[in-house]
Amino acid sequence: MEDQWYLPISDELATVDGIIADTIRSKKPELQEMCDYVTSSGGKRIRPALCILAYYACGGTESDEMLRTASAFELIHDATLIHDDINDKSEIRRGRKTVHENFTVTKAVILGDYFFVMGLKLISMDKNIVETIADASKAIAESEFIQKEFEHKPIVTESDYLNIIRGKTAMLMSAAARVGAYLANADHKTTEAISAFALDAGMAFQMIDDVLDVIGDYRSTGKKAGMDIAEGKPTLPVIYAMSDSANGKRIREIFEKRESTDADLETVLEMIRKTDAIDRCMAKAKEMIEIAISHLSSIKDTVYKDSLTGLARYIVSRDR
Amino acid sequence: MEDQWYLPISDELATVDGIIADTIRSKKPELQEMCDYVTSSGGKRIRPALCILAYYACGGTESDEMLRTASAFELIHDATLIHDDINDKSEIRRGRKTVHENFTVTKAVILGDYFFVMGLKLISMDKNIVETIADASKAIAESEFIQKEFEHKPIVTESDYLNIIRGKTAMLMSAAARVGAYLANADHKTTEAISAFALDAGMAFQMIDDVLDVIGDYRSTGKKAGMDIAEGKPTLPVIYAMSDSANGKRIREIFEKRESTDADLETVLEMIRKTDAIDRCMAKAKEMIEIAISHLSSIKDTVYKDSLTGLARYIVSRDR
Repeated sequence: MEDQWYLPISDELATVDGIIADTIRSKKPELQEMCDYVTSSGGKRIRPALCILAYYACGGTESDEMLRTASAFELIHDATLIHDDINDKSEIRRGRKTVHENFTVTKAVILGDYFFVMGLKLISMDKNIVETIADASKAIAESEFIQKEFEHKPIVTESDYLNIIRGKTAMLMSAAARVGAYLANADHKTTEAISAFALDAGMAFQMIDDVLDVIGDYRSTGKKAGMDIAEGKPTLPVIYAMSDSANGKRIREIFEKRESTDADLETVLEMIRKTDAIDRCMAKAKEMIEIAISHLSSIKDTVYKDSLTGLARYIVSRDR
Repeated sequence: MEDQWYLPISDELATVDGIIADTIRSKKPELQEMCDYVTSSGGKRIRPALCILAYYACGGTESDEMLRTASAFELIHDATLIHDDINDKSEIRRGRKTVHENFTVTKAVILGDYFFVMGLKLISMDKNIVETIADASKAIAESEFIQKEFEHKPIVTESDYLNIIRGKTAMLMSAAARVGAYLANADHKTTEAISAFALDAGMAFQMIDDVLDVIGDYRSTGKKAGMDIAEGKPTLPVIYAMSDSANGKRIREIFEKRESTDADLETVLEMIRKTDAIDRCMAKAKEMIEIAISHLSSIKDTVYKDSLTGLARYIVSRDR
């Protein structure tokens, strides 16, 4: 199941791709080219999947409305990635130049806005749904500010980190699952259970992303290792490694530097790998995933619930 | 009426200011500081006013929902300004540094997203309203792309220009009035009339903005003259001036330059002022405003309709 968690909803995920392509279609050739660039980059479609699986796991039956909403989550997620990459000055994503690198910063700002608005057009005009998405989007913006406050500052704690990744990543994933449950008319307890599942899975997802920044291989991740450290982003592996008795001091020094050289980065990556930071992060992520899965215990066993569990386990076993 | 068009709704506009302040309130001090920076800059609140006046002119009675929606238009407008200023590399707005200049580009990207999302949270969850706003936001994004295509290109025509400003400015103004009429349960004919009014008034509004870029005084406009020309933006005064027999050739040459000096700008502004371009633009804007006002003829006479007319006349008489 772990590798093939998406099989029960592969038709739905294909429909989502179609809805996305139809939604962002533009008569402006350059805008269309940029849209194609983003949608063809092989995103993992995890947010639509969470929405679809939560919906079916809560007893929902085939629904265009749900599929449109699931697609909206991918567009909104893409919008945040496009703007995040500008903010992080990231050059590479999924093995290709980021949007602002391939086009321009100004065009990437507009494209992010465009994706967000087009996502918005797809969602059901229901106060609950819009508020859930707006709250998640607000959390993303706020967490970017908190993250910036901690950039290059070795004082960041694990609790600060958890706070940042909740807003940055987990809230939108949780929103996708919550809205799926809501559209299936799930009762309060079930909705909260499935939202808590996706929130914890989202936290674990970001932890793994941050681990891959240290140990990831370009051929799988499609991005250069160590970029988070170069940008001074306070990630869990770095936080753990900075407290290492043998290497912590030197890691802190490099992390504090505004301009680190490639040699600095190589050194710090090497040092972090020597500490127990990665093992501790992986243990933490796996712990989060088991907590996430435990939230599903009250939900009826179905192939979709199995898929959610599989998706969760995939999150902590992935190498990209 | 022209100078005091807002008097019949001054209480409502004060309420809008309060709603906006409450909506964007954040516990993150830096985010709050940036929000205050934007909202204290003395925007003209024209979009909320259009929404409120359209609502009352269509017989609507006091309504919290309408005031929240009116406030949303200001937040969404602010969001587009924040992102536009990044895209246009503008340094000054309303006599102060633009958001990205005073803070950073990355923070301005996030702040624009934040304002957009917070605006979204305020609107009524009604398919019609969200679609109207989403269509206007889509038009803004698309028109930015069209405008970029024509940057520094002297081939742009008046019709290209009208197409750009419709998407860039007029559509959101029209959306504000349309939603106001809709919330007042106006009939189809009245809704279309008041939307057409605001669309044409919005076109005239942008024409005057573009005229002020050539003849405006920093003390009133709060921005340096000639910035549109420096950025190669195809505005109507420039389009008209480029066809001038005596000065057109030299104006085209400077407009085509990617890097124009302050002396170039002074020269081109001087030359444009010597042509009949400004007179032609003003005549065109006034013509648009009279057309706009004529759309209101079928609407019942009230103090609010008078206000809309006053607002329209203010648009073409303003110096900032």
